Amino acid sequence: MGKLTAMLTVFHPDELAYTGHQLRSHWIYETFGLQGDAIVAFCGPCRVELTEMVDREDVLAGEQIHAAEMLHLIAEHFDRDLTRAVLRQRLLICTIAERLSLSPQVPAPRREGDDLFIGERKLTVSIATASPVSTLIHVGINVDAAGAPVRACGLGEWDVDVDALAGDLLAAYAAEIEDIHLATCKVRGVQ
Amino acid sequence: MGKLTAMLTVFHPDELAYTGHQLRSHWIYETFGLQGDAIVAFCGPCRVELTEMVDREDVLAGEQIHAAEMLHLIAEHFDRDLTRAVLRQRLLICTIAERLSLSPQVPAPRREGDDLFIGERKLTVSIATASPVSTLIHVGINVDAAGAPVRACGLGEWDVDVDALAGDLLAAYAAEIEDIHLATCKVRGVQ
Amino acid sequence: MGKLTAMLTVFHPDELAYTGHQLRSHWIYETFGLQGDAIVAFCGPCRVELTEMVDREDVLAGEQIHAAEMLHLIAEHFDRDLTRAVLRQRLLICTIAERLSLSPQVPAPRREGDDLFIGERKLTVSIATASPVSTLIHVGINVDAAGAPVRACGLGEWDVDVDALAGDLLAAYAAEIEDIHLATCKVRGVQ
Amino acid sequence: MGKLTAMLTVFHPDELAYTGHQLRSHWIYETFGLQGDAIVAFCGPCRVELTEMVDREDVLAGEQIHAAEMLHLIAEHFDRDLTRAVLRQRLLICTIAERLSLSPQVPAPRREGDDLFIGERKLTVSIATASPVSTLIHVGINVDAAGAPVRACGLGEWDVDVDALAGDLLAAYAAEIEDIHLATCKVRGVQ
Amino acid sequence: MGKLTAMLTVFHPDELAYTGHQLRSHWIYETFGLQGDAIVAFCGPCRVELTEMVDREDVLAGEQIHAAEMLHLIAEHFDRDLTRAVLRQRLLICTIAERLSLSPQVPAPRREGDDLFIGERKLTVSIATASPVSTLIHVGINVDAAGAPVRACGLGEWDVDVDALAGDLLAAYAAEIEDIHLATCKVRGVQ
Amino acid sequence: MGKLTAMLTVFHPDELAYTGHQLRSHWIYETFGLQGDAIVAFCGPCRVELTEMVDREDVLAGEQIHAAEMLHLIAEHFDRDLTRAVLRQRLLICTIAERLSLSPQVPAPRREGDDLFIGERKLTVSIATASPVSTLIHVGINVDAAGAPVRACGLGEWDVDVDALAGDLLAAYAAEIEDIHLATCKVRGVQ
Repeated sequence: MGKLTAMLTVFHPDELAYTGHQLRSHWIYETFGLQGDAIVAFCGPCRVELTEMVDREDVLAGEQIHAAEMLHLIAEHFDRDLTRAVLRQRLLICTIAERLSLSPQVPAPRREGDDLFIGERKLTVSIATASPVSTLIHVGINVDAAGAPVRACGLGEWDVDVDALAGDLLAAYAAEIEDIHLATCKVRGVQ
Repeated sequence: MGKLTAMLTVFHPDELAYTGHQLRSHWIYETFGLQGDAIVAFCGPCRVELTEMVDREDVLAGEQIHAAEMLHLIAEHFDRDLTRAVLRQRLLICTIAERLSLSPQVPAPRREGDDLFIGERKLTVSIATASPVSTLIHVGINVDAAGAPVRACGLGEWDVDVDALAGDLLAAYAAEIEDIHLATCKVRGVQ
Repeated sequence: MGKLTAMLTVFHPDELAYTGHQLRSHWIYETFGLQGDAIVAFCGPCRVELTEMVDREDVLAGEQIHAAEMLHLIAEHFDRDLTRAVLRQRLLICTIAERLSLSPQVPAPRREGDDLFIGERKLTVSIATASPVSTLIHVGINVDAAGAPVRACGLGEWDVDVDALAGDLLAAYAAEIEDIHLATCKVRGVQ
Repeated sequence: MGKLTAMLTVFHPDELAYTGHQLRSHWIYETFGLQGDAIVAFCGPCRVELTEMVDREDVLAGEQIHAAEMLHLIAEHFDRDLTRAVLRQRLLICTIAERLSLSPQVPAPRREGDDLFIGERKLTVSIATASPVSTLIHVGINVDAAGAPVRACGLGEWDVDVDALAGDLLAAYAAEIEDIHLATCKVRGVQ
Repeated sequence: MGKLTAMLTVFHPDELAYTGHQLRSHWIYETFGLQGDAIVAFCGPCRVELTEMVDREDVLAGEQIHAAEMLHLIAEHFDRDLTRAVLRQRLLICTIAERLSLSPQVPAPRREGDDLFIGERKLTVSIATASPVSTLIHVGINVDAAGAPVRACGLGEWDVDVDALAGDLLAAYAAEIEDIHLATCKVRGVQ
Repeated sequence: MGKLTAMLTVFHPDELAYTGHQLRSHWIYETFGLQGDAIVAFCGPCRVELTEMVDREDVLAGEQIHAAEMLHLIAEHFDRDLTRAVLRQRLLICTIAERLSLSPQVPAPRREGDDLFIGERKLTVSIATASPVSTLIHVGINVDAAGAPVRACGLGEWDVDVDALAGDLLAAYAAEIEDIHLATCKVRGVQ
């Protein structure tokens, strides 16, 4: 299985539909063979039925999550701290905004919590939750927002190279998680 | 002491020098009377001697932290999880970048880990550490970078309203921390 | 959803049967719209079948939990620490005893662990457990103990104003939890 | 060192002044030879100078802690969870109230957080804090309140058998902690 | 239920087949009446179907776990720390090797992670996992390895007194866990 | 600083006296430049004065720790869990015994808790403790036991290649820690 590093990454080049079933422990391990903290990216439609949704707020609102094509990121961290998971999720959202702002043709996205907007249109969906042995993050970035239940936009409108973006995001997130770990190893305690 | 909310905030209008002594448990409580998780902002010079520095990397490098005038943010969270603290610190750095990018006269800052740069010049210093009862974050945003040991810039160059920025940052960070907490209270676990 | 406070409370005025199904994560959120740590009170019969029981000791003993009418308290805290949950449960039981001892017509209850007795008759049932994302407490205070599998008494015998008691208990528990949190924010560590 | 049980207890029959220096890790171990979670009781004056006080609230108020004679309880638990420590502290305070209410000659004490009052007079002082390897609780019950900085009363006014009370409290607290541990070992998780 | 000690032990003298169903919370409590951290030993065949297996690595490899006769050890610890569980599991494996090396007729076993080998043949299977309220360890030591899917050996080849070994292992593990706990209660923190 | 791996290792070839001052957070980082979980090995005398000792049991007994020459291992892990630290320490002790038993000229060592003996003579000293940001382990293996306060032996009696042993132990411990981490990433939870 090779050398353990802080964070394993894989870009899956084939189309894969995100249905919510992927948000479970060891899905990454069983699908891609990555053992340990990992983040994967792939493209495909998004069709999460209400019964698969983990966000009780959305369930109460009856809001399904649909889009014709998304860039999906799924991360798994083998601790059980949901607060850390939500913090990591938001940092990943910030990272996406940072990377998109490097593409001059894309209007600057605006972050509201764990959502990105371009103008008044929603660009992303995201959730962070806990399994019995890990925490999991899903972020879906619309490529073609057709079918979304709210006003939405997609990267396809601005001719973004989605595969290159995926690679950048995987590398940036893995480097950030590694760097965060190192930051906890270099400070003395204070009184 | 009033009602406990997720995160207390205070903007201290008087000049106060940051020397590193402020990075200790209950400094906020003893100085401003805020009991609980809190973030405070104030302006003043930055003069942290090597003996006060908690970043062993900087100490090894012999890098002192000096600047003529900074906007200082100090946050204290009463848990003991240093990983959460570093994650919160970076999210605070992202928030600063987001707020600055709303000021059309300021060039877009670039984040590298827990640092912000404008062009090649450093705008901020930051550290996150643990006390016996809490974790603590300091961020200093240069207003006048004179005296900095590296190439640095300051908000004074672009005529930023530092007091208004401070108020925005306090409100944004407190709202984000509250929102993160709520996000941990709305998801069901997965398998 | 309004401002986050340490502990949300709701008194539900309508009759509701407690069957054990209510002891799950987000039941409070989905039923009453309270997001975050919360405690709710309502009145109704208690009918917990063996298959719903979480106390393996009672299951082994084959002891069902039945009563014609109870004042039910259900609390949910979004951490995963079962020891804290049991400690909070017992403090809630103490609080019930303290409040009842303010009613001169009620004989002084006696606490044994997480049970209250008046004389030799049992007044309460209680359990604390963990969900994948939270801990949960149920306390049922007999109003009419008819159907209980052990010698039991109910508040109805002493003409207690159950609604007023419920309101007092919600307020007292919420205030205590808030105060406990503040107590963790005011002490320096020792050697 | 004998068999490890959940909670070791010792009643120290000799007079010992409580000065705050006792509130540190391993004081119980080094003084009484009890290794592990333990609670000890002894009688003596209470003279805690401001420099020894761990409650920043009291320090800010300049309130010293003095009494001519107290029954002191010091507990040490080898985990690092300050929330648990405060919860245990309050349960210990409840236990003291419960035990005192069994003595018909003592007026019923009233609990406010971690304080007991008889009428308007304060009967106890208490603190819970963390050491680098444990948490610590001190409760002082006035026997002779002379010298207290606030209106206070002492058990001596009502002819309480302080040694017997001490023994009862040690046994009750140890039994409760053991019972709480068992309660975490008998419940299945819920959804 | 008797006195709580650090670790309860039971040797079950009757044949019992291990199928993987035993690896769940409270199986020890419901089967043997031990409440709290406990380890049990019994002999019987081992037949774990793929659907019962918790090791995703083995499931991916399609490796079933079978043997005609094993000495089984099952331990349950009521914390939720999987890292501790794996550490304890490996220490238990070391303890088995240590005990076997006291039997002059048995060739010295060699440990590889959580496996023991004699020569090139596998002697044991083992897993550590988490339930919602505890962690669980299973170790199976082949007595008669017939049916194992890999090259394996069994204690029966060397005429080991399996019951005596079981008793030694239960006592040694319980003593070690108790001793480890004491070791956490005797050290001061360092800077 | 290079790539983060699970566990960094360094063998320091120069003589270095172990005085107890090395058992502090970031000593490895500041001395050898390894940032993150790490283990180092070096040879030198051992002279730990009572004031430097962290084991209160030894302090109470007045037992100093002295030896003319030891192979020292110091490990630092950046979590704060002392139970994990003691478990890792004992596994390291087991690993030392396993490695020594590969040298046919050395009599088989016997482990008692965190000590190794050869016959009735003590071969090692060891301690595990917590800093404000990490846990630390020291193991000293006598090479020349001269000066030890108890009956002791040293590897020098059996002509062990200490440098080779050091290298083996560093590699084995790092591999084991990595493997333990992977083991926590491959199991599904159970009920």
